[in-house]
Amino acid sequence: MAAYREATPDQAELLEALVAAGHLIPSGVPGVYGRGSDFEDIRMRFDAYVSRAAAPEAPEVLRFPPVLPRRQLEDTGYLNNFPHLAGTVFAFEGSEAQARAQAERAHAHEDWSEHQHMSDLVLMPAVCYPVYPAIARRGPLPPGGVTIDPGGSYAFRKEPSGDPARLQMFHMRELVRIAEPETVQAWRDGWRDRALELLRGLGLDASFDVAADPFFGRSGRMMAASQREQELKFEILVPIAGPEPTAVASFNYHQEHFAHLHGITTADGAAAHTACLGFGHERIVLALLHTHGLDPAEWPADVRGELWPQ
Amino acid sequence: MAAYREATPDQAELLEALVAAGHLIPSGVPGVYGRGSDFEDIRMRFDAYVSRAAAPEAPEVLRFPPVLPRRQLEDTGYLNNFPHLAGTVFAFEGSEAQARAQAERAHAHEDWSEHQHMSDLVLMPAVCYPVYPAIARRGPLPPGGVTIDPGGSYAFRKEPSGDPARLQMFHMRELVRIAEPETVQAWRDGWRDRALELLRGLGLDASFDVAADPFFGRSGRMMAASQREQELKFEILVPIAGPEPTAVASFNYHQEHFAHLHGITTADGAAAHTACLGFGHERIVLALLHTHGLDPAEWPADVRGELWPQ
Repeated sequence: MAAYREATPDQAELLEALVAAGHLIPSGVPGVYGRGSDFEDIRMRFDAYVSRAAAPEAPEVLRFPPVLPRRQLEDTGYLNNFPHLAGTVFAFEGSEAQARAQAERAHAHEDWSEHQHMSDLVLMPAVCYPVYPAIARRGPLPPGGVTIDPGGSYAFRKEPSGDPARLQMFHMRELVRIAEPETVQAWRDGWRDRALELLRGLGLDASFDVAADPFFGRSGRMMAASQREQELKFEILVPIAGPEPTAVASFNYHQEHFAHLHGITTADGAAAHTACLGFGHERIVLALLHTHGLDPAEWPADVRGELWPQ
Repeated sequence: MAAYREATPDQAELLEALVAAGHLIPSGVPGVYGRGSDFEDIRMRFDAYVSRAAAPEAPEVLRFPPVLPRRQLEDTGYLNNFPHLAGTVFAFEGSEAQARAQAERAHAHEDWSEHQHMSDLVLMPAVCYPVYPAIARRGPLPPGGVTIDPGGSYAFRKEPSGDPARLQMFHMRELVRIAEPETVQAWRDGWRDRALELLRGLGLDASFDVAADPFFGRSGRMMAASQREQELKFEILVPIAGPEPTAVASFNYHQEHFAHLHGITTADGAAAHTACLGFGHERIVLALLHTHGLDPAEWPADVRGELWPQ
């Protein structure tokens, strides 16, 4: 198992209050929760709030399931950089006798992993991953490139934690820009500023910072330093529970990485660049509940006015 | 790998037309597709159509992620009955040297399964599974029991196929009733009739039949015969492509199975019974596209009136 990260006392207290209020439903596995109707209502309303802000760009809606072809994961650098976060899908492929042996072991909570074999699927590491091959299939980009809305879809990270803001399966509301380098950079920076306004408009104490991905191992520290130095990743941070503010949105400039990997070119045949932004749905709902209280009916009128518009 | 089921010629033709129209986006793995904006719009509008029909019952909204604790799967009979359909989540737990070895093998598309270990999660086998322990945690049912709306959430079945109506990861819109036996039976039968009206109201040539689950192996044939004999499962069938109509909705009476497994009792301490219904979102969208044409703007006015109400 990936190392379990203990909750701080205030994180444990928040989780207990969220469960008591019916916002989260424990599953027995840390970082995997059901969600109550108010939580889901806030989450979907935040998603619509982002959609209204994105509407002038008329992004194209595409949706993808929470599994990715294993081959695509193998072709990216994900297993070099984040082997500890990936989840792979295994399945049974045996005889009736083997199925009986597997079921008996499983029912006794003994190890039945020998009956499971690696399939051609992995869990979705990031909501934008399936966007790139989908756009590459179409041939060269139209002039000005494309903006894709892959929605608030599920992503998986193997990060078991007692912190309710650190989930293993969560919704990341992404937008993806694929175009010429300058266009992509300007879009990424514009959305960083707009997202800060959107989150502050909901009464959240949001600030932004240059950030780095949680690269694995010693060589990962160099990757992170390089990513910071080139300012490839920004994050917006909001206090939830815990000693430090929590990242609730990120803005990533991939340069030519994904376009090169999947063979996406601009209208005039040059290499395209890509950027994506992601709002962590569950973290933003938690930040709102932590900031304004566990009963959304009692939230400040201006916050309610943004999420429950007339 | 689970046995790949070839498409019939008309299924292959439908898939090709759906891809050409931008409704489905191939991922490279059969039964795993992205979806275009029209497909998603129809899917969400069908979901809202079901929600309007269910509104008089005021079901409680709960939502769950597409992974389930492995322990819960072990405690059900799922691995006895459907070992061929289950997906389990494996993950890395090794050193930096092992991570490098894994990444090298993966990048060369060689077998890297030895570096992956069974985690405490599996893919969601059915949308209603997490509902039962969530309700059990609350203690005895209120008088009259509960009706839960777990939404149009993702479920996984390891059934690779060239038939676009047979997906490995799909949305099943469920409703779950947990109450006294007679209440549950009447609810299940009532919804079977209502669902038939709902689907016929969209111009689909829907019929219902007694059905059985795809139990595994020889002993599975006896299970299926018993399930049919007791009329525990009904399905609604609609022609899509292929030699036979496709099941697009099912209505399952579990008797005391889940309530007993999770310890759910009625208000007066008796064993509860459970039933669920599920609409296969993607199959219903495909049935609509197959029946009324690939451009929803051209659909009959009465069908559009139901899905795009004023």
